[in-house]
Amino acid sequence: MTGMQSNTLDAADPLAAFRARFIEAPDVVAYLDGNSLGRPLQVSIDALTEGATTAWAQRLIRSWDDGWIELPVTLGDRIAEAALGAAPGQTVVGDSTTVLLYKQVRAALALRPDRDELIVAVDDFPTDRYVLEGIAAERGATLRWIPSGDVSPDAVAALLGTRTAVVVLSHIAYRSGAIADVPAITALAHDVGALVIWDLSHSVGAFPIQLDEWDVDLAVGCSYKYLCGGPGAPAFAYVASRHLDEIRQPIQGWLGGAEPFAMGPGYRPGPGIRRMLSGTPPILSLLALGPAVDTVAEAGIERIREKSIALTEHAIGLADELLPDAILATPRDARRRGGHVTLDHPDFEAIMPKLWERGVIPDFRRPTGIRLGLSPLSTSFAEVESGIRAIAEELSEV
Amino acid sequence: MTGMQSNTLDAADPLAAFRARFIEAPDVVAYLDGNSLGRPLQVSIDALTEGATTAWAQRLIRSWDDGWIELPVTLGDRIAEAALGAAPGQTVVGDSTTVLLYKQVRAALALRPDRDELIVAVDDFPTDRYVLEGIAAERGATLRWIPSGDVSPDAVAALLGTRTAVVVLSHIAYRSGAIADVPAITALAHDVGALVIWDLSHSVGAFPIQLDEWDVDLAVGCSYKYLCGGPGAPAFAYVASRHLDEIRQPIQGWLGGAEPFAMGPGYRPGPGIRRMLSGTPPILSLLALGPAVDTVAEAGIERIREKSIALTEHAIGLADELLPDAILATPRDARRRGGHVTLDHPDFEAIMPKLWERGVIPDFRRPTGIRLGLSPLSTSFAEVESGIRAIAEELSEV
Repeated sequence: MTGMQSNTLDAADPLAAFRARFIEAPDVVAYLDGNSLGRPLQVSIDALTEGATTAWAQRLIRSWDDGWIELPVTLGDRIAEAALGAAPGQTVVGDSTTVLLYKQVRAALALRPDRDELIVAVDDFPTDRYVLEGIAAERGATLRWIPSGDVSPDAVAALLGTRTAVVVLSHIAYRSGAIADVPAITALAHDVGALVIWDLSHSVGAFPIQLDEWDVDLAVGCSYKYLCGGPGAPAFAYVASRHLDEIRQPIQGWLGGAEPFAMGPGYRPGPGIRRMLSGTPPILSLLALGPAVDTVAEAGIERIREKSIALTEHAIGLADELLPDAILATPRDARRRGGHVTLDHPDFEAIMPKLWERGVIPDFRRPTGIRLGLSPLSTSFAEVESGIRAIAEELSEV
Repeated sequence: MTGMQSNTLDAADPLAAFRARFIEAPDVVAYLDGNSLGRPLQVSIDALTEGATTAWAQRLIRSWDDGWIELPVTLGDRIAEAALGAAPGQTVVGDSTTVLLYKQVRAALALRPDRDELIVAVDDFPTDRYVLEGIAAERGATLRWIPSGDVSPDAVAALLGTRTAVVVLSHIAYRSGAIADVPAITALAHDVGALVIWDLSHSVGAFPIQLDEWDVDLAVGCSYKYLCGGPGAPAFAYVASRHLDEIRQPIQGWLGGAEPFAMGPGYRPGPGIRRMLSGTPPILSLLALGPAVDTVAEAGIERIREKSIALTEHAIGLADELLPDAILATPRDARRRGGHVTLDHPDFEAIMPKLWERGVIPDFRRPTGIRLGLSPLSTSFAEVESGIRAIAEELSEV
């Protein structure tokens, strides 16, 4: 009966046609890791090939004049419009999420020189914690930790004070999938004069983000998850326009300078969001990312979110039925969860290799979690069911 | 007569066959900018396409287990062997040259905590100077500037002292092409207890580097020039094995940590050179770079240097004959110059657009320089002549 339901859901899915735009993986029965690495769209591969064989090979250095030099900003604007709810001129692409987060945190601290506390969550993704630990040590700042569990406005409020410089949190938690209330937490931080940096890695492309409306100061995010930019594709950084004149980041490089080709003495930060750049970004990766972002725009982030809710709802329903011993680590209330679902079971680690062998590919997160990353444009309801049935089968054989 | 000489030189060139491995650019008469952006090898495009359509699209997240996770180090070792004269385990690929230089300088300063001076050259590439200016400002260090002109051991010695923490210089100057005496300057720095960081961007892949033998501490370099890794391809960093246990860099990210997938509390630096990593590197770019590095290895860096000398010798001879009013900004002594030649003339800026239109593509460097980057594996002697003849023609029409 659930099987029929999956087919019914697929038949009624207004975004179903997008699946065919992704490159097929014949040995994959269920790809449930779209929040670790999104599948490639054919248009991205085409752009990559075209970029390599034409822009690089034929136009050569002239391609910098043909648009490469502006690409970190023009592509940033496309991401901003498709997925961030941000006006142009505030988003740039380049570097890894880790490096951009480092630059953003350092830049935010410099905007609050008389404050010495950073708020961070114990459950946040390791890179976020590690970056902050490093910066706290080098700048003599103190980390105030939100304890394990949901990042609620109350949990943040309990740590906020006149010493708080920056609140650095993830919009959607990488493990549980819980959504933080960005506008509420941002407002609380602003009430005490602090800034916020939101890591959007697990929400961008799957959840409607409204950075401008939410009054966010700074943000970073990953482009290789729901944005499907490719393995290690460069991340993006957002700086609200009100901070752009004043903001300075520590890795001063020529491409972030005022006149890169003047090559003159003395660094002067470049205009607007360009100043967040440092060195030369990996252009071919940006070219592959572009059409993937445009595909998100075409599908529409609201429709993507609707399907995301339906997919996670379906996954939870199937888990309730087929994996009664697994514990749902993700909020059951759809309004409180993002695009992935994590289930815990002591035997999950043991069955992971068998799942991967049979082409059922979720992710494993220690100590006992299977994480199902359901990328809305590339995942079918039937696929979710095949995956969860496979998990149930393997579990029954442990 | 010079025309015949070009053909004779091409006919006798033992590396001539490598040219056919690069993708043709039909409208390009003479590509003389291989030190800004190397041309693509067909094997690199093949690796890029294969990486996208198989490793990314088919293997998906499983590719991390198939070798991606080790790729920054395994590829680093290939570069080390092909072009750096460095034993395995000391070189890693990831981030841009600018970001890696930032990490290296910060790491080196931390190894000399009781010292507060950095030596840098006025003529160095802007990113190097800008990175150092930023770090000096944030760490309260003082920059000691080598004045305009050659970076000689004497010029460095004049600034070295017990306060010198790190000497940060380019092996081959981006504008003049002059070679710095790495072993001599490194030894002088060591004599006063300072460390060296060499930027190899304009030498790697064109000049035989011996980092281990020269007793270099740290190095960075660009992979999209003579290594032909593609536009914005990630850079590499070298840390001598004697420093690896102690070295710490400021951008603490999960991929540089001891157990990336444990995702535990508290950053611990990863084993060996991995600790220089921060976030996820752009994998497709690394895949394209790999076979390009292997091609350098196959050609052999000594043979590449021989051709490089012959190409620059040819360019200087042609310039003497055809561009008598241009001033050679590059050392005439082949032992003192790298793989590019810069000529100055007040009318060069005016003719650049015309040269590019006719498919003759050198680079322009302010205020009056035309820079000829003669990538040994992809440049013919006839191409050098065509380019210089075109420059002479355009100059005669100003």
